[in-house]
Amino acid sequence: MTKGEGPSQKPSWQMTCPISIKDYPKITLAHGAGGSLTGQLIEKMFLPMFDNPALALQHDGAVLGFGNKRLALTTDSYVVQPLFFPGGNIGSLAVYGTVNDLAMCGARPLYLSAGFILEEGLAMETLWQVIQAMKEAAFQANVQLVTGDTKVVEHGKGDGIFINTSGVGILEHELLIAPQSVRSGDVILLSGDIGRHGMAIMAVREGLTFESAIESDLAPLAEVVLKLLDARVKIHCLRDLTRGGLANALNEIAKTAGLGIHIREESVPVRQDVRAACEILGLDPFYVANEGRFIAFVRPDHAQRALQVMKSYGHNAGQSEPQDLGARVIGVVNAGSSGIVTLQNKIGTRRILDRIAGEQLPRIC
Amino acid sequence: MTKGEGPSQKPSWQMTCPISIKDYPKITLAHGAGGSLTGQLIEKMFLPMFDNPALALQHDGAVLGFGNKRLALTTDSYVVQPLFFPGGNIGSLAVYGTVNDLAMCGARPLYLSAGFILEEGLAMETLWQVIQAMKEAAFQANVQLVTGDTKVVEHGKGDGIFINTSGVGILEHELLIAPQSVRSGDVILLSGDIGRHGMAIMAVREGLTFESAIESDLAPLAEVVLKLLDARVKIHCLRDLTRGGLANALNEIAKTAGLGIHIREESVPVRQDVRAACEILGLDPFYVANEGRFIAFVRPDHAQRALQVMKSYGHNAGQSEPQDLGARVIGVVNAGSSGIVTLQNKIGTRRILDRIAGEQLPRIC
Repeated sequence: MTKGEGPSQKPSWQMTCPISIKDYPKITLAHGAGGSLTGQLIEKMFLPMFDNPALALQHDGAVLGFGNKRLALTTDSYVVQPLFFPGGNIGSLAVYGTVNDLAMCGARPLYLSAGFILEEGLAMETLWQVIQAMKEAAFQANVQLVTGDTKVVEHGKGDGIFINTSGVGILEHELLIAPQSVRSGDVILLSGDIGRHGMAIMAVREGLTFESAIESDLAPLAEVVLKLLDARVKIHCLRDLTRGGLANALNEIAKTAGLGIHIREESVPVRQDVRAACEILGLDPFYVANEGRFIAFVRPDHAQRALQVMKSYGHNAGQSEPQDLGARVIGVVNAGSSGIVTLQNKIGTRRILDRIAGEQLPRIC
Repeated sequence: MTKGEGPSQKPSWQMTCPISIKDYPKITLAHGAGGSLTGQLIEKMFLPMFDNPALALQHDGAVLGFGNKRLALTTDSYVVQPLFFPGGNIGSLAVYGTVNDLAMCGARPLYLSAGFILEEGLAMETLWQVIQAMKEAAFQANVQLVTGDTKVVEHGKGDGIFINTSGVGILEHELLIAPQSVRSGDVILLSGDIGRHGMAIMAVREGLTFESAIESDLAPLAEVVLKLLDARVKIHCLRDLTRGGLANALNEIAKTAGLGIHIREESVPVRQDVRAACEILGLDPFYVANEGRFIAFVRPDHAQRALQVMKSYGHNAGQSEPQDLGARVIGVVNAGSSGIVTLQNKIGTRRILDRIAGEQLPRIC
């Protein structure tokens, strides 16, 4: 039956699935972990299917024309377990995570939507705590939550609370902030120490105890990005270090830009308690998720100015006073090894920092 | 600990939950069914918490300033079971459902986001079929899917596929299309026969068989709304008849507008097979969900022009040729009985058409 011939909507399902059903008959946790299997879904299924210029940029959100302005649109679903963790909860995460994706597009976050999928039997008090955290986070990030939706699924068909937030922001500059704008020679800056969000979650899940709990780095990133733009820093690309951590972010950008990236390992700050927790669990902090850290690719002659701004406007979760979270220059872009990220250690040895294949840490965000 | 005193983000959770924990200790399926318990969540918890003018309109989406234009932003999560039903599937539903909410704001739909929550073990082929249906629906509705997100949860923590879509549209007129614009004397038009989507789903779930399957009325509503605007019809309010059906939509608008609504029962078209299925299952078609039907509140002297447009630009799912789906004038707004919807039957008897309390049909969208 072709279009218009009958009442039933039947898309052309004869097309063969672009992912081998023989090799991957079913969705696995790794398909949602932000590594190469997530990449396969995006590159083989989603991008060719919904082919358009905004999606093709493969950035944290889409930058779109609207009247004579540009807007950014982004979406994320949050399925973190446990719902409450040191430094935040699924509500504050759902607000800051989407605000940060708008910031990574170079947009000023304006409006959020919220879609809740609740599991039958969820304690009303839990929902109330999550809602209050969302309000507080929206206040901190200076965004308005303007529309929403609530669905309830039967007990055993969900997991307490899932939240989707989508965000709209406005671009108030002329830059194209995306992997495609990265150039050989660009300097790469990191906004602070890495690995805290993932290890805060894992420490709770695994029952690890330290002198004091590892708190998530969860925080809004829009202010520091807007300050970089105010300072007229020529930003080529921004990326927050969520699923797959620093390693994944660098690999994605190197691949999309078709350039090489070189990082000095010792310049990447990792807190001692985070490093200890990673060692206990056999994890590499370069691959652990963060929710308040980002990398910036800037023109070399703007790197020092950018670093000053990043040192001056960092935020920890729940702290309204800006501070230096350990912002550093961590590496450079080169034209040599297209799509490859190399890591140089203290004694000068270089190794390739690969993209992770499977799920290191499921349900971290 | 107050803001700024420590690293932990602790909102003021001392506030008492505005919904009685004693009466409603847990979330039930009825909280997601679009009836009075959903209304309680919205009115007692969400609206006061995220208080802002856009949210206060209580419409299908938010209308927001952006530069010198107005945009509409809307979000919906789709949790329908079964994933595939006569006339559509969760993919086409996720596109048309959100397109329709933008249309109900009087907006031209432009951009969609898609957030997937997949259950571990989902067949790759199923995902592929859903993705293809989304592409086909986006083409039919003339929107671009520009950004997305995929999460995977463990087997038993989800239910195959949940999809959130958020939509952005542009307003190309000066009207405020919202319940607050409804006036006494407004004529109420209905775009076609009611109850098909809900009964298409229920017939599959309950194993009911008819001579031919009841197909969902799922279809995009943007074209007919844009044609109404082109024809300069003074539209006061639009509402699609999803969860809770016609009865719920009328009650929500009557309540928000603070006016009475009077409907002639015999003017509301219900197909014979839908009526039969409703009788078997003990359901009232006035409360059954639709996914391609809407009501329009218009100035009385514009009603005939509006009816002509609605008869000329109706769509059934999968049919590209517009047709008359049975558009009718079904009632009027009056100043008498604030917030009350009355139904008059063939012999002139009047009764109140209440809002439904619990879940008539869970997971219908």
